[in-house]
Amino acid sequence: MAVEAPKSKAGLEDVVAASSSICYLDGQRGVLAYYGYDIHDLARGASFEEVCYLLWHGRLPNRAELGDLQSQLAAARPVAEPIIRLMRQLPASDPSTGSGSGMDMLRTLTSALGQYDPEAADNSAQANFRKAIRLTAQISSIVATYGRLQAGGGPIQPDPALGHAANFLYMLTGERPTSLAARAFDIALVLHADHELNASTFAARVAAATLTDIYSAIVAAIGTLKGPLHGGANADVMRLLIDVGQDATPERIDEAIRGRLARKVKIPGFGHRVYRTEDPRATHLRRMSKELGERAGNTRWFEMSQRIERLVTGEKKLYPNVDFYSASTYYTLGIPIDLFTPIFAVSRISGWTAHCLEQYANNRLIRPRTDYIGPEYPQTFISLDQR
Amino acid sequence: MAVEAPKSKAGLEDVVAASSSICYLDGQRGVLAYYGYDIHDLARGASFEEVCYLLWHGRLPNRAELGDLQSQLAAARPVAEPIIRLMRQLPASDPSTGSGSGMDMLRTLTSALGQYDPEAADNSAQANFRKAIRLTAQISSIVATYGRLQAGGGPIQPDPALGHAANFLYMLTGERPTSLAARAFDIALVLHADHELNASTFAARVAAATLTDIYSAIVAAIGTLKGPLHGGANADVMRLLIDVGQDATPERIDEAIRGRLARKVKIPGFGHRVYRTEDPRATHLRRMSKELGERAGNTRWFEMSQRIERLVTGEKKLYPNVDFYSASTYYTLGIPIDLFTPIFAVSRISGWTAHCLEQYANNRLIRPRTDYIGPEYPQTFISLDQR
Repeated sequence: MAVEAPKSKAGLEDVVAASSSICYLDGQRGVLAYYGYDIHDLARGASFEEVCYLLWHGRLPNRAELGDLQSQLAAARPVAEPIIRLMRQLPASDPSTGSGSGMDMLRTLTSALGQYDPEAADNSAQANFRKAIRLTAQISSIVATYGRLQAGGGPIQPDPALGHAANFLYMLTGERPTSLAARAFDIALVLHADHELNASTFAARVAAATLTDIYSAIVAAIGTLKGPLHGGANADVMRLLIDVGQDATPERIDEAIRGRLARKVKIPGFGHRVYRTEDPRATHLRRMSKELGERAGNTRWFEMSQRIERLVTGEKKLYPNVDFYSASTYYTLGIPIDLFTPIFAVSRISGWTAHCLEQYANNRLIRPRTDYIGPEYPQTFISLDQR
Repeated sequence: MAVEAPKSKAGLEDVVAASSSICYLDGQRGVLAYYGYDIHDLARGASFEEVCYLLWHGRLPNRAELGDLQSQLAAARPVAEPIIRLMRQLPASDPSTGSGSGMDMLRTLTSALGQYDPEAADNSAQANFRKAIRLTAQISSIVATYGRLQAGGGPIQPDPALGHAANFLYMLTGERPTSLAARAFDIALVLHADHELNASTFAARVAAATLTDIYSAIVAAIGTLKGPLHGGANADVMRLLIDVGQDATPERIDEAIRGRLARKVKIPGFGHRVYRTEDPRATHLRRMSKELGERAGNTRWFEMSQRIERLVTGEKKLYPNVDFYSASTYYTLGIPIDLFTPIFAVSRISGWTAHCLEQYANNRLIRPRTDYIGPEYPQTFISLDQR
């Protein structure tokens, strides 16, 4: 019974599934770095476009290289008419019934993008690098345009003078964002860009390792990110905050959370497979949630989040992860909840594509085994007439 | 540097990634069994619908249970108008340029199916079981209808009096198949229904383990199956046979294959990560390729395949896998090459959904680690102005 297969911990915990130069992650010390650059340095000093360059090339760009990449990204921003048409025609999400989600729309439209890309079947490194740029630009524009249509507006043409983060907010709202909002969103994109073999990136690499095209791999990643145990958690955090209520007293907050803990209901946004200490991304998002709240004159979501953090960390020894403070950060930026997980994809597409490029460059099919626990072999086959 | 993570062989070879009752696979002895039932018994004595029941319920159905399932599958066959509309509107594959493929279309349409399914967000076992039935019926109808439209015909309404295999061929061609063709195709579906943690099934489980919806998991699987190192190989086998030429002499066949081996070009349809002996599925497909060729009065593709098998097995010690003789089998059934891999999905959807149901029932996030081989941490961050 698969005797040749050694057992391992459930969920491949601590099992190495690939060699990679992209992301250095030390769960004990709470360290995250892209190509050796600490996430704190990048959050403070680098734009999302610089991080894209870093993830795709393995080094930070100089000004000329960055300018080239920015031009290529800006040129790839407009959403083609057939994609807009699909966006209008496919069922939108309905928050009142919980049916559909922005992630479903993004999954279908990204798959359709592959059908419209004449380079989709060219799996050369050069073509895949170009597709990484296009996917990064297009996913941003698609999510922003979807949000715009959901809000009842018409599509906004991208502004090539704006950076990636600011242009996203512009296409979403039709208004050029404040520099604080643009920088906050840029930092959020930097923080979410890559995280080693998280489930969606791993799904992308499993797909890419069959030498399928990069669109197929990215669509696999999008469907995986959607799950509430992965990217879907940021939307669930905001639903929790709203459920507890903006005007809830500290006592009411404590009661609501303690009640959930007592009923063993999972509190979204806490705990992580790898980190045994504070998620370094949460440090920045906590600060952004506070600053944006202060600037908006409403720190209730931040304060409620902080109170929940104290309770959950105190009682369960679980630390907030990347999803916990991104919820109140995005909400304070005026972004609708249905876009929270798609926004995760707007950033993570940079890491997904980097991992696909790395997988293609040194490929081996990812094909593990199961531990067979079913009926003994062989079962005696009885024909239908005798059953 | 991720010191807590033990190294393992590349591609998770021989690593256990999940416990499962579904598929028993012994690569040394060449044994494949679903829930303990040997694939040879199932290929000889069971229909695809019986195998679906087995994969979903863990036991073979009696006549009443099988009748219920057949009714449910037949009721779920009609393709909804919005899906037909998408199929007509999205770019079809163009064999002359190699752009697009039936797998791209299937990936987008299956994603769209999720958007039209009001139960998509209900992740209860009951709802997912209903979705498994609908997906199995719909993927068959979508692939057949796509093939029909590509051939210039109009959509054919399903015939509820026909079994799953016969109905597929009817919807594809507009003609009720001979009993030999229907049975041959039924056996092909039985043989492809499940194969433990192959890459596409593994991708589906990685997605499902985030508790994403089953459509997202299946779309991940479709994109993964597309790869030439996985399901895409059956189309590549047929392209090889055609490239060598139907009228090639034995000498010309040998020369073409030896030339590829000398240039280290991979011969599609040979070798398998798990089997160290003949793939038990190949045994049946070889026989079917021969029988169908004899009935059609053209055994050239079968004979060429056999000659290639002798050469490759002789020189490389590689055995034909499930893809090798399925190519000539499907071609002799009159199925266009662009549908070969989609047909793999028409069958494997039964195993994918069974694995998703099993994953949801006893879930743990699948989140492995990498072996970090990148630049030493920490790299000194230099701001853009100084680079």
